[in-house]
Amino acid sequence: MTNAQASLAHLYRVFTKPEGQDSKLAQIERHLSDNLADFLSRHVVASNRSLEDIEQDFNQSLIPEQPQFVSEHAEQLLDKLVAHSVNTYSPRFIGHMTSALPYFHLSLAKLLVGLNQNLVKIETSKAFTPLERQVLGMIHRLVYKHDDSFYQQYLHNANRSLGSFCSGGTIANISALWVARNRLFAPRGQFRGISQDGLLAGMQEYGYQKLSVITSRRGHYSLGKAVDVLGLGRQSLLTLPCPNQTLDPQLALKEGQAILAQGGKVMALIALAGTTETGHIDPLDELADVAAELGCHLHVDAAWGGATLFSRRYGGLLKGIERADSVTLDAHKQMYVPMGAGMVLFKDPDAGNQVRHHAQYILRQGSKDLGATSLEGSRNGMAMMLYASLHILGRNGYELLIDQSIEKAKAFAAMIEAHPHFQLTTSPVLCLLTYRYVPQAVQERLLVEPQLANSLHPLLDELTVAIQKHQRESGHSFVSRTRLETQDYPQQAINVFRVVLANPLTSADDLTEILAEQHRLAVTLPQFRQVMEALG
Amino acid sequence: MTNAQASLAHLYRVFTKPEGQDSKLAQIERHLSDNLADFLSRHVVASNRSLEDIEQDFNQSLIPEQPQFVSEHAEQLLDKLVAHSVNTYSPRFIGHMTSALPYFHLSLAKLLVGLNQNLVKIETSKAFTPLERQVLGMIHRLVYKHDDSFYQQYLHNANRSLGSFCSGGTIANISALWVARNRLFAPRGQFRGISQDGLLAGMQEYGYQKLSVITSRRGHYSLGKAVDVLGLGRQSLLTLPCPNQTLDPQLALKEGQAILAQGGKVMALIALAGTTETGHIDPLDELADVAAELGCHLHVDAAWGGATLFSRRYGGLLKGIERADSVTLDAHKQMYVPMGAGMVLFKDPDAGNQVRHHAQYILRQGSKDLGATSLEGSRNGMAMMLYASLHILGRNGYELLIDQSIEKAKAFAAMIEAHPHFQLTTSPVLCLLTYRYVPQAVQERLLVEPQLANSLHPLLDELTVAIQKHQRESGHSFVSRTRLETQDYPQQAINVFRVVLANPLTSADDLTEILAEQHRLAVTLPQFRQVMEALG
Repeated sequence: MTNAQASLAHLYRVFTKPEGQDSKLAQIERHLSDNLADFLSRHVVASNRSLEDIEQDFNQSLIPEQPQFVSEHAEQLLDKLVAHSVNTYSPRFIGHMTSALPYFHLSLAKLLVGLNQNLVKIETSKAFTPLERQVLGMIHRLVYKHDDSFYQQYLHNANRSLGSFCSGGTIANISALWVARNRLFAPRGQFRGISQDGLLAGMQEYGYQKLSVITSRRGHYSLGKAVDVLGLGRQSLLTLPCPNQTLDPQLALKEGQAILAQGGKVMALIALAGTTETGHIDPLDELADVAAELGCHLHVDAAWGGATLFSRRYGGLLKGIERADSVTLDAHKQMYVPMGAGMVLFKDPDAGNQVRHHAQYILRQGSKDLGATSLEGSRNGMAMMLYASLHILGRNGYELLIDQSIEKAKAFAAMIEAHPHFQLTTSPVLCLLTYRYVPQAVQERLLVEPQLANSLHPLLDELTVAIQKHQRESGHSFVSRTRLETQDYPQQAINVFRVVLANPLTSADDLTEILAEQHRLAVTLPQFRQVMEALG
Repeated sequence: MTNAQASLAHLYRVFTKPEGQDSKLAQIERHLSDNLADFLSRHVVASNRSLEDIEQDFNQSLIPEQPQFVSEHAEQLLDKLVAHSVNTYSPRFIGHMTSALPYFHLSLAKLLVGLNQNLVKIETSKAFTPLERQVLGMIHRLVYKHDDSFYQQYLHNANRSLGSFCSGGTIANISALWVARNRLFAPRGQFRGISQDGLLAGMQEYGYQKLSVITSRRGHYSLGKAVDVLGLGRQSLLTLPCPNQTLDPQLALKEGQAILAQGGKVMALIALAGTTETGHIDPLDELADVAAELGCHLHVDAAWGGATLFSRRYGGLLKGIERADSVTLDAHKQMYVPMGAGMVLFKDPDAGNQVRHHAQYILRQGSKDLGATSLEGSRNGMAMMLYASLHILGRNGYELLIDQSIEKAKAFAAMIEAHPHFQLTTSPVLCLLTYRYVPQAVQERLLVEPQLANSLHPLLDELTVAIQKHQRESGHSFVSRTRLETQDYPQQAINVFRVVLANPLTSADDLTEILAEQHRLAVTLPQFRQVMEALG
C-alpha cells in the first residue's frame, strides 16, 4: 500500500468504522457514562500548574502533516486537556454559573452529533424545527402566561415568531435590542426604516438628539457590547447606581425624563431578573410602569433568574416580567442544559418581523425556516436538550431544584453571618450571595472606629483577591470574586467573594469546608498580616 | 414515600445515577457507536409526512407538570423527533453543506458535555483557553502563513488576539465588520471612537456623506444582517451583479470610486471564497488591490472555501487571501466538525482590541479570558472538536477530502453534461455545482429558436421547483435549489438545482441514481407536461 492509499484508508475509517469496544475513546465513554464524578476526579488533576505552563502544551501553530490514530490522540486529550480543565461538576465549584448536569445529557449530546441537524432551515432539520418552536412556546408561556388559543395561533405560524434559540444570553440581549431599535425607527414617508436606511437616517427622520438605554450598574457586560454593535455607542448606556443591588424605579424615571427633556429618546429600559453578580431582581412591575411612562421598550435580562418562574414559592419575585417586550433566558444556566442554549422571547409575535430576512436558497418567503428571524445562521439542535429536560424533570422537578438552591443560599448566608471572621455583603434573593473575609478583630475595631474603613478597605480588598486566587489554585474548591458597591458601603466599591449555589450536589458540609479552607488560607497570607498590622 | 420525596429522589437520580446498560438511552448510544448509518436508516423514516402533520406532535405549550422516566422519554424522542429528522449523513443528501462526520466526534461530544466548560473565561475553562488559542493560531497560519516567531509572540498574548471562535459564519461575519467599523471610526480629538460615541457622532466627526459595503450578489445573507445590526442599514450593502459568479474587480473599483466621489466612504469590500450557492471564488488578489485603492477593510468570507487551503492542488484558488484584514471560516463545513464551530480571523493581532471589553467579575484587564474580544459571551469548547480533527486527519487527510470532493464535483458535472435531459448551469470550482432539468426536446428547440426562452424559462423554473420538492419529500435523496443569473442567462435569474458534494461517502453510483430519480420524477409531473405543451 502506498502512503496515499494508507492515508485514504485511515480517512474512510474515521467516517465509517467505529472505534472498537476496547479503544481508548470507548473506555472514556464508558467511564463518563458509569461515573462522571469519578471520571472527573481521576482525570482532572487539581494541580497548581500555571496557565503559562499549560500554554506550553498548546504552542504549535503548524497543523500536523500526518494523521494520528484516534486512540493515541484520545490519550493526549486526557493528559493535556482534560487533566487541566475545570471540574465544573464538583459540588465545591460554586464560583460561577456552570454546574453539574443531569446524566442523560451525555447520551443526548451524542445523539445530537449523530443527527447533526442544522436548524437554520427545515431542509436540514425537519422535526427539529417544530420541536424548537414548541420549546420556545413553553418558555414563552412560562413567562407570558397566555392561553392555549394564543399558542395554537402562533406556535407554528410561518409569519410570526415567539422568539429565537441562540448560543447564549449575549446574543439574546443583542437580538432583543436589535428588534427594539428597528421597531423604534419604523418606516414612514420616504424613510424605509432603520433596517434599510440605517441609524443616521433614522435619527434624522425622527429628530432625536440622542438615543439612550437605561439599566443599572449590575447590567451584564453584554449590554455594553449590544449598544456598541448596534451603533448607539457605549456612552448611550446609562448604568445607574444601585447600592442595594436593584434599579430604583424613581431614579430610572427621573433619568429617563431628563433625556426626553433634552430632546433625546430612551430606546429601552433593561431590567435585570437575577443579576450576574449578586442574583438580585429589579422591581419588574414598577419598571414596566416606568417604561410605559417613557414610551420605551422594556427588556428583561432573565438569563439567570428566568427559571425561578418554575417555582410557586419564588416565581412571584419576577412579578411584572409578563409586561416585558422581550426577555432573555439561558437554559444552560438554571435549566441545567449543556452550554449553548440561550433564548430571546418576544411578547408580540410580530416583533421578530423587525429583523426578518430572506435568501434565494433558503429562508424563502412563507417558509417556516427558523433562520429568517434569528441573528445567528446555522445552529445545532440544542433545543432538544431543553425539550428533554422539560419532560424528564417536569415543572415539578425544576421547582424543587430552584427552591433547594435558594434555600441552600439562605443557609449559607446564615453560616457566614454566624462565622466570626466572615461578613455577608449581599444577601441571597436567588441562590447567589457575596461575602468577605474580615478578621473578627477588624470587625470589632470598625464598630468603634468606623473612620478606619478608609485605610482598611484597600487592604481587605487585597486580602480578598489573594484568598480567592490561592483557593482557586489549590484546586479543592472555587468561589469567584467581583467588585461592587453595597448597602453598607454605597459610595465605595469593595472586593467580595461571589458564590452561585446552583449545583444540586453541593451539601452543607461542602459549604462549611469552603469557609474553613478560606480561613485556613487567609491566616497564612502576607495580605492578612498587612491587615492586622494596620490595626496597630 | 411522599410525592415530594419521590420527585426529589428522581431528581437526584438524573444528576448522579447513570442509566443502566440495558436502558433505552444506552441502547441508542450503542447503536450510534456501532453503526451510525444503520441507526439513521432504521430510525429516520423516509416518510412524506407533511410538516403540518409533524407539528401536531409538537403542539403543547404547557410544560408538563410531572417528571417522566428517561427511557420513556428516549422512546418518544426516537418516534417523534429522530424519525422525522433529516439524514444529513446519507451519501444521497447532497443539497446542503451538512455532511457525514468522522465517528470520533460522537465520543468527543459526550466528553464535551461531561466537562461542560465555558470558554468565556479561564476560571471555567483553563486548558481549553490555550487549546482554543492554538487552534485559532493553526488556522490563522493556514491563511496568513506567518512564521514561528509571529505565533510565538501572539498565540497566547493577553493583549492581542488572532481571532475568535463563534457559533458560525454569521457571527464571524458580523464580528469582522464590527471590527472594521470600529477601526474606521477611531477616536480623535473630542471623539472617543464609535464604540463609545456611536455611529451618528462618528459620521459627523469624519464627515462621510454615506457609508458603504461592497460585495457581489452571491454574498451570503448574513452580510445583509450584519449591516442591519451594525446600524449602516441594508441599503449600504452594494451587491454587484456577477453573472459569471465572481465579483469583477473593475466593477468593484468603479462602484467604490463613485461612492468616494460622492463624499461617501467604503467601509469594507467583502470577497467570497466559496459562494454558498455555487462555490465560486472571487479573485482575491485583485480585490485586495481594489481594497487598497479604495482604502477600505478587506473581508474574505471563506466560511465554505477556506478549507481548500489544506490542498496543495487547489489551495492556489484562494491566492490573495493572506492580504485580507479578516477572514471567516466554518469548521462545521469542510472541516467536518459538528455544527457550531465558526471562526473569524484577523490579520492584525491588534484588531480585536477595537471591540475589547471588561467586567468586574471576569474579563479583567490583563486576563487571557477569551470573552474579552468576542461577540458572544458564554461558549462551549467546540474548539476541541477541531483540535482533534486537525490531529487525527492531519493536513494530509484534509487535503485528500478536499481534492476528492472537487474531483467528484467535476465528475458529476461531466455526467450532467453527458445526460440528454440535464444542463449544467454553473461549473464546479470547488465541490458545488448547479444544474437544471431541461428535456432534450426543449434543448434542441431552444438551439434553433432562442427567442422561445422567454416563455419557456418560467415553465422550466416551475418544473425545477416541483422536481426538487417531490424528490425531497420522497426521502431517498436530496438536492437543494436556488435562483440565480448565470453566464448563459446574465439578465434573467433562473431556478436551478444546487448540490454540494462534500460527503466523502457519496459515490458515483449515488450521483447516477440521483439524476435517474430526477428524470423518473420529472416525466410524471404536470409541470413537465406544461413545458412540453409550450413547445407546441
